[in-house]
Amino acid sequence: METTIEKTTTHQTVNAYIEKNKDRFLTELIELLKFPSVSADSKYKGDVLKTAEYLKNKLQEAGADKVEICPTPGHPIVYGEKIVDAKLPTVLVYGHYDVQPADPLNLWTSPPFEPVVKNGNIYARGSADDKGQIYMHVKAFELMMKTNTLACNIKFLIEGEEEVGSSNLDNFLMVNKERLKADVVLVSDTSILANDVPSLTVGLRGLTYLEVEVTGPNRDLHSGVYGGAVPNPIQILAKMITSLKDENNHITIAGFYDDVQELSAADRAELAKAPFDETAYFKDLDINAGEGEKGYSTTERCTIRPTLELNGIWGGYIGEGAKTVLPSKAYAKISMRLVPNQKSDKIMQLFQKHFESIAPKSVKVKVKPHHGGEAAVTPSDIPAYHAAMFAMKQTFGINPIPVRGGGSIPIVAAFEKILGLKTILMGFGLDSDDIHSPNEHYGLFNYYKGIETIPLFYQKFRELSK
Amino acid sequence: METTIEKTTTHQTVNAYIEKNKDRFLTELIELLKFPSVSADSKYKGDVLKTAEYLKNKLQEAGADKVEICPTPGHPIVYGEKIVDAKLPTVLVYGHYDVQPADPLNLWTSPPFEPVVKNGNIYARGSADDKGQIYMHVKAFELMMKTNTLACNIKFLIEGEEEVGSSNLDNFLMVNKERLKADVVLVSDTSILANDVPSLTVGLRGLTYLEVEVTGPNRDLHSGVYGGAVPNPIQILAKMITSLKDENNHITIAGFYDDVQELSAADRAELAKAPFDETAYFKDLDINAGEGEKGYSTTERCTIRPTLELNGIWGGYIGEGAKTVLPSKAYAKISMRLVPNQKSDKIMQLFQKHFESIAPKSVKVKVKPHHGGEAAVTPSDIPAYHAAMFAMKQTFGINPIPVRGGGSIPIVAAFEKILGLKTILMGFGLDSDDIHSPNEHYGLFNYYKGIETIPLFYQKFRELSK
Repeated sequence: METTIEKTTTHQTVNAYIEKNKDRFLTELIELLKFPSVSADSKYKGDVLKTAEYLKNKLQEAGADKVEICPTPGHPIVYGEKIVDAKLPTVLVYGHYDVQPADPLNLWTSPPFEPVVKNGNIYARGSADDKGQIYMHVKAFELMMKTNTLACNIKFLIEGEEEVGSSNLDNFLMVNKERLKADVVLVSDTSILANDVPSLTVGLRGLTYLEVEVTGPNRDLHSGVYGGAVPNPIQILAKMITSLKDENNHITIAGFYDDVQELSAADRAELAKAPFDETAYFKDLDINAGEGEKGYSTTERCTIRPTLELNGIWGGYIGEGAKTVLPSKAYAKISMRLVPNQKSDKIMQLFQKHFESIAPKSVKVKVKPHHGGEAAVTPSDIPAYHAAMFAMKQTFGINPIPVRGGGSIPIVAAFEKILGLKTILMGFGLDSDDIHSPNEHYGLFNYYKGIETIPLFYQKFRELSK
Repeated sequence: METTIEKTTTHQTVNAYIEKNKDRFLTELIELLKFPSVSADSKYKGDVLKTAEYLKNKLQEAGADKVEICPTPGHPIVYGEKIVDAKLPTVLVYGHYDVQPADPLNLWTSPPFEPVVKNGNIYARGSADDKGQIYMHVKAFELMMKTNTLACNIKFLIEGEEEVGSSNLDNFLMVNKERLKADVVLVSDTSILANDVPSLTVGLRGLTYLEVEVTGPNRDLHSGVYGGAVPNPIQILAKMITSLKDENNHITIAGFYDDVQELSAADRAELAKAPFDETAYFKDLDINAGEGEKGYSTTERCTIRPTLELNGIWGGYIGEGAKTVLPSKAYAKISMRLVPNQKSDKIMQLFQKHFESIAPKSVKVKVKPHHGGEAAVTPSDIPAYHAAMFAMKQTFGINPIPVRGGGSIPIVAAFEKILGLKTILMGFGLDSDDIHSPNEHYGLFNYYKGIETIPLFYQKFRELSK
């Protein structure tokens, strides 16, 4: 089913439509944010599905065809498309409707799934990551459909497992290669440097996430009766964790850096041009100093260098008061961010081997892989990249800066590998949005700016693809 | 009110009464164990009080006078007495009716507060520590009263805050000095080496218990966006914990060992005579090796040497699945067992100073003292000690072995300091009773053996005190 849409998207048309529908755009986002679509926790399975259904309805209402909730062995994928003309370029829009767990709940100033608009932001889990950002695309699509200005074919692929490693997406891509044929992938799941300093993300780190378990004695013991003579799994886990980095905060896992491509001095100098106020950064986090790999700047440490971070630790008595227990087990969740050319699976194996090798013989250790994904560098020499630069310049008034991001969107590598597609990372969030943290929020400025920018991207991409 | 009880306690009288009342003795203990008297958790406050009321009733039924639930700013103390003759020696019986928290609940094979008798043991939180052991004294008292054989005056002091540091007991002792006048304190809250190897505890370790908090950034962060550049409180806490011991597992806190009195080679040789099967010990715990201070045996490590143990640790995401968070805070509960001459308060100060001094400037740390108590060595040259040796020899058939215990009963030092009283530690538990652990249990053999031994102690103590 092809429709010919001939009108040109103008900035004026776009702004007029947004102005008229502003309140409804916000109301709908609030509805979407009310679903607790936490993919990591099985008790929210029903809510995750309801979120998918909401998006399906909204895509249909906006005019998408073949809208479908595609089941997977995990949470479903929402698909929808609009083929304007087979001869026009096709953009595959990717996003995710699942969210991170909301705890610690007591640190939220308003409940995570009861969105509140305050100080120009909307506060809710998923507001920035990624419901608010994917919904900009749904509304921009509506705008182009209703104003009869859709300049390219569009395919939507919105998944529900990004926060748990997108484990069923690769298979979906393979099975649906034909259906997903496109010219480029467009993703809004990253940040700009500031509301007056637009930027385009040109690189992302990969990820290896795992859990470790250290077992000392076969049962919890009285720390007075046994203390001093028996391996304490907390102490041993602490020691093992500590040994994963040396005094320069270099990671000590054998082979960990083997595949890392060092950036040239020129590349590092180029990246250092992005505005960054370290004093303000530390002040915002209320820390007196950074902590990271020797020889690299704060910005480099969280973008172009691989890391190892402790995401969680637990063991023994963690309730109120005191319990003199010498516990049987201690656990930690550990993740490593990877840079281009490092392979997630290989790093998992290296970690596992290393961790087992450093365990003293008095304990047993287990390494349980969670998920991973590859790092990616996105190209800056293709029409879609220039279209994104152009569109952002139109709406922000200045040229966006290309930056490397510290986070991971593992499926960027999968799009390249399975579908042969490059990805444009045109996100509108801010690093200060507190994604994955209590009080996650998304600026209304950013939400509307996204809806404003996206149609201009399509128009320019069509022109540049001729 | 004085009563003259003239009959002599004979082993035969004792055994006959136990045989006749065996089932009721067990039924009553089961009732007592059903109260979840967890002193550490404020939600059990009402249950703690009910437990005190149960004991009050049982002491009254057995014939005690002046039975009273004495309020304290925390949980109450149960007092009761029987003065037979002011000229006879008086024994102050101490025990505690509060219990450790029961978690982790999922590791219990039967619920902690639904006592089950299985394989000759009674399984319940508090069965060995200390409800089962203090109740032996209540039933032995009943036995002596009903058979008209009480050989000494008795005063019961049963507290509800032993597991949280007995913080209101010192004050109670000071205020009630006159009421608590006695010749010796008798406590059953320790173990024998085995059911066929009776022992008397002649030393206990002291305790310093505290909690630490390490704060990195002021809020939870996304580990991709910030990871690698910002102080991770879990990693830093792990490093700080690790540095508390050197490669020989000596504690590195400056001044920690200053007041430790090293035992002579002769004393160590004497202690080493107690039977101990290290292979069986490791096998029971399912560990391949011990872990402890270089230069000391397993037995020494958990009796005559001070220790530092991690009792709990937590921070970041500890739920199901994965969350890529770089947390704001990490916590640990740490306790140190102390040997005679070390002072609990001084060790707390040394720890605090040391821990703050080793914190990197990128984090903030807090040390929150919980509770503490002093180590004690009990005398083996007083009539009550000989009476205990004699009574155990009668009921076990062989001489008990004097041993040093690893646990702490901080109030032993307080009895000496405030009341000027020596303490006899005549416990009947086993180290394998899993006190403070899931599936705590107490042998029925041990319960009845205690009831059998206690009256013989009184009889002998009276004779030796003449």
